[in-house]
Amino acid sequence: MSKKSKALVLFSGGQDSTTCLAQALHDFPGEVEAVAINYGQRHQIELKQAQIIAKLAKVPFQIIDFPLLSQVTKNSLTHHIPIEHKEGQLPSTFVPGRNLLFLNMAAIIAYEKNIRHIYTGVCQTDYSGYPDCRDNFIKSAEQTLNLAMETQVEIHTPLMFLTKAETILLMQNLGKLDWYQHTHTCYNGKRPACGTCPACILRLKGFKETEIIDPLDYEVQ
Amino acid sequence: MSKKSKALVLFSGGQDSTTCLAQALHDFPGEVEAVAINYGQRHQIELKQAQIIAKLAKVPFQIIDFPLLSQVTKNSLTHHIPIEHKEGQLPSTFVPGRNLLFLNMAAIIAYEKNIRHIYTGVCQTDYSGYPDCRDNFIKSAEQTLNLAMETQVEIHTPLMFLTKAETILLMQNLGKLDWYQHTHTCYNGKRPACGTCPACILRLKGFKETEIIDPLDYEVQ
Repeated sequence: MSKKSKALVLFSGGQDSTTCLAQALHDFPGEVEAVAINYGQRHQIELKQAQIIAKLAKVPFQIIDFPLLSQVTKNSLTHHIPIEHKEGQLPSTFVPGRNLLFLNMAAIIAYEKNIRHIYTGVCQTDYSGYPDCRDNFIKSAEQTLNLAMETQVEIHTPLMFLTKAETILLMQNLGKLDWYQHTHTCYNGKRPACGTCPACILRLKGFKETEIIDPLDYEVQ
Repeated sequence: MSKKSKALVLFSGGQDSTTCLAQALHDFPGEVEAVAINYGQRHQIELKQAQIIAKLAKVPFQIIDFPLLSQVTKNSLTHHIPIEHKEGQLPSTFVPGRNLLFLNMAAIIAYEKNIRHIYTGVCQTDYSGYPDCRDNFIKSAEQTLNLAMETQVEIHTPLMFLTKAETILLMQNLGKLDWYQHTHTCYNGKRPACGTCPACILRLKGFKETEIIDPLDYEVQ
């Protein structure tokens, strides 16, 4: 490529996208931007934490308002529906079509800003039944977006095949473990984190396997 | 399929999507809904006409507000940039990533309403350089959406390989030519239509080839 490459990170303020941000900065130093989508998630604290981390990482950061999802869908992340996961069903936290919308918006911003690389923290290993976190979906989305816009955007998913523990070790290698104290994971929207919801339990399990101490504060762990 | 099939039409109030609406009603009588996306197009008259036609067709109709596109992109349909098309470049009316966003939103609505069939009026024949009107894009989008949501949505594009003249003949066969008097085509947003912009000229050329009279009112033709 003749032009200097730039990267855009889909950034939520969670542990995974924060690790992606560190990876993108490692791959494209000084050429990274971050974008978050405000889709009406119950816990606006996520976006507040995203802002804190972007500042720490010294990357331009924008929040795109996208209220549509909470208008047309019903799920635990955008409405007050109990979190549950029945055998053989998609979990109630599934927002259908969400990741493609996010990638599509990231690709539009990338198109306008002449950015070729998009990073997203989706992960097949711990995907909990979300079909739009799988590698075959991402490959298909990359092709579809490039056909739509006659571009050659590359979607990077550095966490795709990592366990939570391996993600933490990656972050340690990238030298940014301290950023984790600002990330938000808790489904109950608590800071200090509740330590008892499925998201907190998964996170704590990952740290336990690595024998690294989670810099985040918890109520119980 | 055990359940009765339903169809959702991506509907703009233009000639093509109105033809799609008629086709969908022919294929799935009494089981059709229509949705329009308000993405900040310069001519809100399109949506007003869409409402008139949906009422005539007796189909439920909803408008989804989606201001994002006009925030993040610059083009002739959403900003006051002169309409032009330089050789070897995408036309200035191209809204990058638009059709995938529309299909994605239609697929989310379809998911929530248990609708399997989506109709869109995209057309490769007259595509004027829009990559996201081509058949290979639609096939790829269908696959990506189904991977994202674990669905079996079918995207119908009855106009894909038709010329403007053939689209008009299709509408004649469907017995709904009179709906065309309410459709909106003019890039200058005029009713009566200006008759001189590229969109009006293309439309009039189509009618001329069929020897059918366009029921729409024009200033000049």
